[in-house]
Amino acid sequence: MYRSHTCGELNDSHIGQTVTIAGWTQTIRDKGNIIWVDVRDRYGITQVVGESGRVSEDILNSLKGLGREFVIQIKGEVVERHSKNPDIPTGNIEIVASEVTVLNKSEVPPFTIEDNTDGGEELRLQYRYLDLRRKPVQDKLRLRHKVSVETHKYFDSIDFMEVETPYLIKSTPEGARDFVVPSRMNPGEFYALPQSPQTFKQLLMVSGYDRYYQIVKCFRDEDLRADRQPEFTQIDCEMAFVDQEDILNTFEGLVKHLFKECRGVDFLEDFPRITYSEAMERFGSDKPDVRFEMEFVNLNDVAKGKGFGVFDNSELVLAINAKQCAGYTRKQLDKLVDWVKRPQIGALGMIYCKCNEDGTFKSSVDKFFSQEDLAQWAEAAGAEKDDLLLVLSGETDKVRSQMNELRLHMGDELGLRNPNEFAPLWVVDFPLLEWDEETERYHAMHHPFTSPKAEDFDLIKTDPGKVRANAYDLAMNGVELGGGSIRIHDKDLQARMFELLGFSDEEAEKQFGFLMNAFEYGAPPHGGIAFGFDRLVATMGGSESIRDYIAFPKNNSGRDVMIDSPATLNEKQLAELSIKTAIKQD
Amino acid sequence: MYRSHTCGELNDSHIGQTVTIAGWTQTIRDKGNIIWVDVRDRYGITQVVGESGRVSEDILNSLKGLGREFVIQIKGEVVERHSKNPDIPTGNIEIVASEVTVLNKSEVPPFTIEDNTDGGEELRLQYRYLDLRRKPVQDKLRLRHKVSVETHKYFDSIDFMEVETPYLIKSTPEGARDFVVPSRMNPGEFYALPQSPQTFKQLLMVSGYDRYYQIVKCFRDEDLRADRQPEFTQIDCEMAFVDQEDILNTFEGLVKHLFKECRGVDFLEDFPRITYSEAMERFGSDKPDVRFEMEFVNLNDVAKGKGFGVFDNSELVLAINAKQCAGYTRKQLDKLVDWVKRPQIGALGMIYCKCNEDGTFKSSVDKFFSQEDLAQWAEAAGAEKDDLLLVLSGETDKVRSQMNELRLHMGDELGLRNPNEFAPLWVVDFPLLEWDEETERYHAMHHPFTSPKAEDFDLIKTDPGKVRANAYDLAMNGVELGGGSIRIHDKDLQARMFELLGFSDEEAEKQFGFLMNAFEYGAPPHGGIAFGFDRLVATMGGSESIRDYIAFPKNNSGRDVMIDSPATLNEKQLAELSIKTAIKQD
Repeated sequence: MYRSHTCGELNDSHIGQTVTIAGWTQTIRDKGNIIWVDVRDRYGITQVVGESGRVSEDILNSLKGLGREFVIQIKGEVVERHSKNPDIPTGNIEIVASEVTVLNKSEVPPFTIEDNTDGGEELRLQYRYLDLRRKPVQDKLRLRHKVSVETHKYFDSIDFMEVETPYLIKSTPEGARDFVVPSRMNPGEFYALPQSPQTFKQLLMVSGYDRYYQIVKCFRDEDLRADRQPEFTQIDCEMAFVDQEDILNTFEGLVKHLFKECRGVDFLEDFPRITYSEAMERFGSDKPDVRFEMEFVNLNDVAKGKGFGVFDNSELVLAINAKQCAGYTRKQLDKLVDWVKRPQIGALGMIYCKCNEDGTFKSSVDKFFSQEDLAQWAEAAGAEKDDLLLVLSGETDKVRSQMNELRLHMGDELGLRNPNEFAPLWVVDFPLLEWDEETERYHAMHHPFTSPKAEDFDLIKTDPGKVRANAYDLAMNGVELGGGSIRIHDKDLQARMFELLGFSDEEAEKQFGFLMNAFEYGAPPHGGIAFGFDRLVATMGGSESIRDYIAFPKNNSGRDVMIDSPATLNEKQLAELSIKTAIKQD
Repeated sequence: MYRSHTCGELNDSHIGQTVTIAGWTQTIRDKGNIIWVDVRDRYGITQVVGESGRVSEDILNSLKGLGREFVIQIKGEVVERHSKNPDIPTGNIEIVASEVTVLNKSEVPPFTIEDNTDGGEELRLQYRYLDLRRKPVQDKLRLRHKVSVETHKYFDSIDFMEVETPYLIKSTPEGARDFVVPSRMNPGEFYALPQSPQTFKQLLMVSGYDRYYQIVKCFRDEDLRADRQPEFTQIDCEMAFVDQEDILNTFEGLVKHLFKECRGVDFLEDFPRITYSEAMERFGSDKPDVRFEMEFVNLNDVAKGKGFGVFDNSELVLAINAKQCAGYTRKQLDKLVDWVKRPQIGALGMIYCKCNEDGTFKSSVDKFFSQEDLAQWAEAAGAEKDDLLLVLSGETDKVRSQMNELRLHMGDELGLRNPNEFAPLWVVDFPLLEWDEETERYHAMHHPFTSPKAEDFDLIKTDPGKVRANAYDLAMNGVELGGGSIRIHDKDLQARMFELLGFSDEEAEKQFGFLMNAFEYGAPPHGGIAFGFDRLVATMGGSESIRDYIAFPKNNSGRDVMIDSPATLNEKQLAELSIKTAIKQD
């Protein structure tokens, strides 16, 4: 062992002891005849001192010869510090060096290894092994570890079994693109990497495993958006002989356990539940951030029919009430208008209405609306003096989506989205199907194994878009943490669902034949959920970005710039795999 | 919830209660006016009864209409059984059915869902979801789950962090073949799936993570032997600021913890340690089975120079002593000779020497060896009356390897390899390099990051094959459970090692440049180990085969016959990936 203690554990109780620590030189303060070196490891920072007279000249020179990020081993006596640092656990002591060993030197790192580094994002990705030394990054990965361990403990305590499902599976051309793997032993054939273990966990239910979970990597070859990774981690779960209520309660238990053990947050109440349609109506989102109110107000009754064409020609006129914002300046309001008109939001404009202190109203459409009209808006929105109404209009889906963005933006601006506050919410009764404009057919909103609600079943033929599913999401702080459904366990119903989704019999057989076959042999009622593990941990950590919670993330082009991957293969490898590259001539 | 109780929990204390269970019909015994149905779930089996007079005709008919593996829900009163079954926890009670609901029907399964099934291996792989219903298979996967959970708990308790390393990495043409993944977004380029997270865990040490572990899937595109899988699971571990002693103690602790918690086996003693060269000398194997003795005896001094050309021309004459086997018949001995001459073993012949009850000796080479000569053999081997010496000779490496096989075979024959006895053993001081006949150069025996022993360092130039490494394996019952090494943490030494292994500077830079770069910035001394998780669990379960401990294994051609994978891709997928298949014309 290279050390008797870590750099995080020495305190008053060790004064007088001779100890050995090892770690990296964090900082060096050289005052000539006295020198201080901060030594850092995963556990903390310990100050080492060398002073002319107290230590030999050799030791002093060794300390002076150190550079940033050198790996060193220090032996010495623990003494009380003159000037104590109450901010760190080791702040009362320092070590008077009696032996200094350089275990490894270091070049000067390309950015500072500090909480607030001077390195840009690409540089830090390229030298990720140095970025990973920074305490904020280590803390994030420590949280990730803790959440993982507590997930295992929770599931083990309630009789769930972790079962590993295969990574080399079969491509299903539906849905997102698969990553594929050429098979050398089966020339011309390919494995696919799983987008999720969906079919395998359903097979495990058919096999009677009853309560399954797995923390598992999944893969999706999508065009990357910010904060999407081609490989990501799921907490994947499934249960048999349960209905939706059992699932929600079981996994609400998981989330409560994790927050309590890993964040010290106690959710005393049941998580609220709202339906998808209510969520869309009140928040314009299936993952509303309910840390703050500012709910949608429908102004159709009071804003249409007054001669303002924009409203009159709109399907929906929506307002939100920004409390105590009537003082917004012209400039602030113009900025908001510009913000909603950005292509990412896509609104054509925004109307405002200030509720002045004196009881009057001031709107951007005073030409069309009287004070009495505006008073009706205010009443509908529950607005009081000093409040500001922001109004968007247009097609229902579009205006809801735009207003959702505006609401979140206002939440950010007004500091209503506290990262240390957590507001969970079950959204239930998702639609079974969604219409896809491009392919002009219905797609499964969740996936093709999701069961429709029994009471909506007759609508499948007459009005498929109206059919609700036994499907649910857990949302928190505007983020979807997980989602799932009660599955179809009846072979005939599953076959009808494939038909509805436009699968030919051959396609269904080729892709899911093994699941359909399995359903011939006694499939129990079952359902499950999958949590996005990266996103769950990031949300628990109070962050919207998942990348820092992944030890070795890829950049937005799907590249690992540290190891320089992907890369070309040599001809021998390609020949063995019976493939050729066919790069398009641009 | 579809049930009030599982099929494993009802007992005397529930008599008189009305309960609901759900599960699969295991067996049906129909005696006309009375019918018993055994209902099975993951937790156990509960007997349901319907009797004319006690239940309605409808219920009786419903029960009579059930078939094997139907999924059913039964409501009824728990009563005491007339004829009790003391072998199962629910054996004192039965349920008098008052409601019978068929949740799903089942076709007649292609093999019986019993502990000893009538299904052949290929059929069971094809219907793996039915094979997984059998209790022996469920027990194996339950053990696997338990070992996984306890691994997480152990590591968490001693401050290890699980860190997930990426699956989409970069191909390294050295060593075993990689599975590769074409990158759609980077045409003509490929990711590779990791054979192990080796370089990433070393980077984590450079990053100061200090104690890392991960239960992780790894991939190797090798020609499959029996009991090798293209994807397999490792417990991957690494520590910084440690020497070999620290590593052995830490991971011996893990293995002891797992055996205690998951098998109730307490290892009270430290695991024995022997060097690689001693293991080869005494057992001819770097993973000796030390549940039994039968150690190698070198007969060179007493068997050579007596005019028997086979021995005289051999580098090594080796014996093992099969205690109390002098009674072996001619037929038994001939069978052993045939066994060692099989191509898999490759011996040219085998000599025996019986130590008779009357103090005489009987050998297959009496023509060349006197009774006194044979007495010397017996003395060297510590053989007593009634013992049987089996002798092989030839080149040192070959005869050791052959004798190892013969020793294990005799151990099996004589019932000395009790699957419920566990004999762990550390094998240390592995050679750094091994000579590869085919490429005519040295290969790293462990991997190119393994450090040589300091005291052997000068041999690197003069006699590389003699250099020992800081490398170690944990063997148990003739199986390698894990192996690891203290790594090189010095950039210059690592560069020299690459040179010794025949890497050009460009190759080393292209493949491991990021690791070499990382070593510029303060790499701590570090080392680690990786356990084969599938094999560890199989060994703990008392089995030599790993396949049953994997939920969805592939067959010996690397195919998943259940989902029929790998499979062809459609042209659109290939085009998107910028690849073409180039199937060789045979």
